[in-house]
Amino acid sequence: MFEFENERSELMGKIEEFIHRKQYTALRDLLIPIEAADIALLMGDLPEEDLPLLFRLLPKELATEVFVELDSDEQELLIQGFSNTELKEVLDELYLDDAVDIVEEMPANVVKRILTHSDPDMRKSINEILKYPEDSAGSIMTTEFVDLKASMTVGDAFKRIRRTGPDKETINICYVIDDNRHLIGLVTIRTLLLTDEDTVIGDVMETSIVSVSTLDDQEYTARSLSKYSFLALPVVDTENRLVGIVTVDDAMDVLQEEVTEDIEKMAAILPSDKPYLKTSVREMFKARIPWLLLLMISATFTGQIISRFENALAAATVLTAYIPMLMDTGGNAGSQAAVTVIRGISLNEIEFRDTFRVIWKELRVSVLCGIALAAANFVKLILIDQMLFHNPSVTPLVALVVCCTLVVTVFTSKLVGCLLPLLAKKVGFDPAVMASPLITTIVDATSLLIYFQFASFILHIGA
Amino acid sequence: MFEFENERSELMGKIEEFIHRKQYTALRDLLIPIEAADIALLMGDLPEEDLPLLFRLLPKELATEVFVELDSDEQELLIQGFSNTELKEVLDELYLDDAVDIVEEMPANVVKRILTHSDPDMRKSINEILKYPEDSAGSIMTTEFVDLKASMTVGDAFKRIRRTGPDKETINICYVIDDNRHLIGLVTIRTLLLTDEDTVIGDVMETSIVSVSTLDDQEYTARSLSKYSFLALPVVDTENRLVGIVTVDDAMDVLQEEVTEDIEKMAAILPSDKPYLKTSVREMFKARIPWLLLLMISATFTGQIISRFENALAAATVLTAYIPMLMDTGGNAGSQAAVTVIRGISLNEIEFRDTFRVIWKELRVSVLCGIALAAANFVKLILIDQMLFHNPSVTPLVALVVCCTLVVTVFTSKLVGCLLPLLAKKVGFDPAVMASPLITTIVDATSLLIYFQFASFILHIGA
Repeated sequence: MFEFENERSELMGKIEEFIHRKQYTALRDLLIPIEAADIALLMGDLPEEDLPLLFRLLPKELATEVFVELDSDEQELLIQGFSNTELKEVLDELYLDDAVDIVEEMPANVVKRILTHSDPDMRKSINEILKYPEDSAGSIMTTEFVDLKASMTVGDAFKRIRRTGPDKETINICYVIDDNRHLIGLVTIRTLLLTDEDTVIGDVMETSIVSVSTLDDQEYTARSLSKYSFLALPVVDTENRLVGIVTVDDAMDVLQEEVTEDIEKMAAILPSDKPYLKTSVREMFKARIPWLLLLMISATFTGQIISRFENALAAATVLTAYIPMLMDTGGNAGSQAAVTVIRGISLNEIEFRDTFRVIWKELRVSVLCGIALAAANFVKLILIDQMLFHNPSVTPLVALVVCCTLVVTVFTSKLVGCLLPLLAKKVGFDPAVMASPLITTIVDATSLLIYFQFASFILHIGA
Repeated sequence: MFEFENERSELMGKIEEFIHRKQYTALRDLLIPIEAADIALLMGDLPEEDLPLLFRLLPKELATEVFVELDSDEQELLIQGFSNTELKEVLDELYLDDAVDIVEEMPANVVKRILTHSDPDMRKSINEILKYPEDSAGSIMTTEFVDLKASMTVGDAFKRIRRTGPDKETINICYVIDDNRHLIGLVTIRTLLLTDEDTVIGDVMETSIVSVSTLDDQEYTARSLSKYSFLALPVVDTENRLVGIVTVDDAMDVLQEEVTEDIEKMAAILPSDKPYLKTSVREMFKARIPWLLLLMISATFTGQIISRFENALAAATVLTAYIPMLMDTGGNAGSQAAVTVIRGISLNEIEFRDTFRVIWKELRVSVLCGIALAAANFVKLILIDQMLFHNPSVTPLVALVVCCTLVVTVFTSKLVGCLLPLLAKKVGFDPAVMASPLITTIVDATSLLIYFQFASFILHIGA
């Protein structure tokens, strides 16, 4: 049993040694049993000048599989070095959707070269798929699927699969279309195998079909596929004509990308689709500075609240010491609610119509949390701050101010935290943006206002 | 074109009406074309007492598919109401891995009833899978796969698939074992279909196989499957004997659960695997209060720092107004780094050996961000606070203190943010815990210390 990560550095050592000693046959024999995705990872760690050598050592089919798995920088490097014949060979082996993925990442001159050397059918298909908007079902589909007619027998279907199968992305599900290419049914390879050869496809096909439209969002497409546990999902145009399919492996990649995007947005970062170590410092700076700036400016309002209550703070300086605790607890309580709701929305567990159920739940949770935190804090203030450290300014009244603020802050924060993502969803914004950082900034201000209200009411100190 | 979410409330209306008017044939005809996963969602919205009725209306096979998709509460309710014959019928239709999933969630008396009415083979298999630790590959695998011998011909293989296929989770990949059940190869249904009937399996099978062991983590298993774009991954015991397979649909569910867990941990919530609206207030309270308490207590240290510098703040009260902005910006900058690194680690893009590359990258990004923020802030302090609002206490020296603090805080925060997850990974903790809330608490304290250092150095005010 081969566990790649455990053997990665050992493999790298061997590869470098074989390259150094020019032992190319041994190198080839070392690489062939390794999965394409892992060879691509190893190639990513090699010096750029060794890539073409390694690539040319591999058998043609494996070489193409590895090529698909490489990062776009490395793909570009290899293409730049390819002779026209080599390029054509690789292109002929590529599945259409992989070819489109590659073309999308290349600079214009490389795209032109790729299209010039693709065969006419593929060129036409690539151009068609490139027309669909980014992140649409059309942009991630492949047109290489098996189509059957309802009038064929199972035996005919097998003949067709045997003839056209080698070029198809999957043969596990075959789609049944009528003469106008309308999607009218589907049949799995399992059904075909378990059915008599003379049976007519129309009699065994499933006719209640879930499909997506070319312009549907790629995340919606991937989630549907996952929800129904399909291996592929048909993509149709506005007239229900079958134009392509999205396969489960591509759906998994889409879900992974979308989750990364959501997580980045929740951390106040503009999303990028590059792996961490491949992202340049400049790109990272550009992804991070906008929200940092915006949130910094918003936080200055919180500062103005403090300024307004400067006199109150001067009258009871002990209050200042509890500001960070109150702001942080509010922020944390709000983030918990926000992040749970955001995830619920993106998993389709929560809809806007559930708003009142969500609020009712969060209110009860917030009361419990607020009281628990206030109680713990009261004990801490009296036992530790007052009795242990003999801090005379921590009076029971001060403790009361802090604890009342805690209860109301947690309550407000959870309310803001659960409402903002739902409202964002309603007005068509991305709920993920309403996560911790934004909530924190809002909650900071509200918790201070609550604090000073209680201070003036209980301790009778004015602004 | 059927888009479930758009028609959901309309469907619910019709279902309720049909139930009310006892139009059961119409109800059945309405439900049959709907996907099982969607029927389950609709049943989740119905009053509990209607579930058995709806379930019994469905054709047996569809009813079982729906049963698998229901929440465990609803499954339990149905099982409680089943006659022994009904229970046996459902169990006979279930795939093994689904049966295990159900058993895992049921109370002991229901489990006993299920096991009593399963056929002996299934009972044995369920008991075996239940022995594997939670979250292991063994616990999510199924033992219902197609196994072939290397000496069989392709024709023999098809006979075997036709005979045993109906009970198998997938027939798209068949596994080749020797007489001692060691996994020696695999062959896809596509290869079988495209190969001559007389060819021997041993000649066409793939022999470089990626497999996982029964005790491997389920997330590792799902990630491997996704990385290599497989439809199923074989699971072997310590002696490389094939004991089961994990299929892509289960891997997708695992990845989704693990992502939800990570996101919850990043928001300082103890992970749960229940959907938001199904989680009770009590469960939510218990998931949220531990971190809130811990972080609240940690935040009191930040308060103590403020207390220590009370005199400095009294000497230049204007400084207090910038505390929230400095703490928030530090927290946001740190979270950005932490969350990016945590996601990189969980996608296997970043390893512990990359620590220095990560630090070097974050350092450069933090310098850029720090300078940009400081510059923006300096302009804001001088132009708005001093000139526009005529606040005489905002002197250029105060602005200098704030801006220097910003630069150093952003620098420190990004460093802490990228280092903590990597260290957590190294010592075997979950890096996801080292996200925003914890970083914020740490960074709050350090940013205040930095602030007061600069204040005492530049403004010459002491503690």
